[in-house]
Amino acid sequence: MKVKLAQKYGFCFGVKRAIDIAQNTPNATTFGPLIHNEMEIQRLHRDYGVSLSNTLKEAQTYQNVIVRTHGITKEDLHTLKENGINVVDATCPFVTKPQNIVKKMSKEGYQLIIFGDKNHPEVQGVASYGEDVLIVANIDELMKCNIKRRLVLLSQTTKQSEQFGKIAAWLISKASEVRVFNTICNATFENQRAVLELSKEADIIIVVGGKNSSNTKQLLEIAKAQCVDSYLVENKEELEKEWFKHKKLCGITAGASTPDWIIESVKVEIEQI
Amino acid sequence: MKVKLAQKYGFCFGVKRAIDIAQNTPNATTFGPLIHNEMEIQRLHRDYGVSLSNTLKEAQTYQNVIVRTHGITKEDLHTLKENGINVVDATCPFVTKPQNIVKKMSKEGYQLIIFGDKNHPEVQGVASYGEDVLIVANIDELMKCNIKRRLVLLSQTTKQSEQFGKIAAWLISKASEVRVFNTICNATFENQRAVLELSKEADIIIVVGGKNSSNTKQLLEIAKAQCVDSYLVENKEELEKEWFKHKKLCGITAGASTPDWIIESVKVEIEQI
Repeated sequence: MKVKLAQKYGFCFGVKRAIDIAQNTPNATTFGPLIHNEMEIQRLHRDYGVSLSNTLKEAQTYQNVIVRTHGITKEDLHTLKENGINVVDATCPFVTKPQNIVKKMSKEGYQLIIFGDKNHPEVQGVASYGEDVLIVANIDELMKCNIKRRLVLLSQTTKQSEQFGKIAAWLISKASEVRVFNTICNATFENQRAVLELSKEADIIIVVGGKNSSNTKQLLEIAKAQCVDSYLVENKEELEKEWFKHKKLCGITAGASTPDWIIESVKVEIEQI
Repeated sequence: MKVKLAQKYGFCFGVKRAIDIAQNTPNATTFGPLIHNEMEIQRLHRDYGVSLSNTLKEAQTYQNVIVRTHGITKEDLHTLKENGINVVDATCPFVTKPQNIVKKMSKEGYQLIIFGDKNHPEVQGVASYGEDVLIVANIDELMKCNIKRRLVLLSQTTKQSEQFGKIAAWLISKASEVRVFNTICNATFENQRAVLELSKEADIIIVVGGKNSSNTKQLLEIAKAQCVDSYLVENKEELEKEWFKHKKLCGITAGASTPDWIIESVKVEIEQI
């Protein structure tokens, strides 16, 4: 099988930074998964003794707690610090930015609207910094909400730029002032643009990444719109030979939390089909 | 001919207010046309002695100068006041609002973008209050401009809400912060919505208003998109019988500067066709 990698894919700045931090803090724990990639988390545990705590209580049994790339809530951070835990902040700077915006704009009396998934830890963390915060996954959800006259709109870092613009355009027609902060991270945007191009050319697309990773799921969605035969796999074992029948060119991309060694193993496997 | 008036049409709050001001300031002059309707200006001259000065020099030969609904530039206002002229401000409050926004936001270091017509007196007046102001008539013009990272977007009061939203959505994808002030006036918006509805039903639309009136031209454009046989007339004399051949229902709307007595005379004329 002939394969072609997207022009931009995989690890972003924030993920690379977090992994460096974890490797430099051996035997610490992360509160929640450091990044949305289970195999990389296992590697950090095996090679650096960095464990995963799924609850705040569990995390507090460690001396050093690493804050995940997606950030945590203001309240949880407060609890950790109050209990004398050494907090090592691996929150992606592109996530710290919306946290600070929400904090500042909430104080200035704006109603806050976050375009994002209310179950995603990044969004929960960002929202925790404000008082009057709405979280909407799409424009239909937004239309059911009570909208005030002065609004701040921001986005989960991994959302699609086009949908964000549509939400903004709708809000503008309803409010007097809409202050829009484009908090979609550039890496996400570039990976999205690259898979869009690739999916016009390839007749099958394989997206490598965690199934709970927001940006990975966005990549799949973008690919599918152009190329129906697009699939998301976490590793080479999930590839099915059936998918590749009668296909000529397989495009490959990967989410921002997917390490190169996993992408490489998937690529080699596909080439042998 | 059967006729139907749009649910909302004609005089807006700002125009009504300006005419009241003019009627209460007999023998004054207006610097530039008070409103974009020549016949109403002639009536104010005939009945109240309110004249029209087309230049600042001419206006300064009067004791009382009325500022037109569209406002004037900061510099012209300054000159009038410095020369001891009694300035009677008939600027529509919906125009004073964007003037104040430009003044404040320019001081806060934002690049200002006005969606509007650079030759329109309202836009020239609003733009004069800022330092770093771009005026764009559409998204194509905007795409050729140098866009900064922190922007304020506002609109000429009589522009279309949908186009404004599209411009905002494009800007959001390019900048870090876009602060959008919806300065499209409600009356304009309501007249636009009403003609949209009417043009789906009627097979000919007559828009009554000044040919240099921005909001009137917008109404014509909206009507034409649904109903090809849409025409703009300033008075009943401009109606052509030819237009009404084989038509069943004529919809009528009017710009925000069009007085009721002109609309009524056009309506009566059409009914007799």
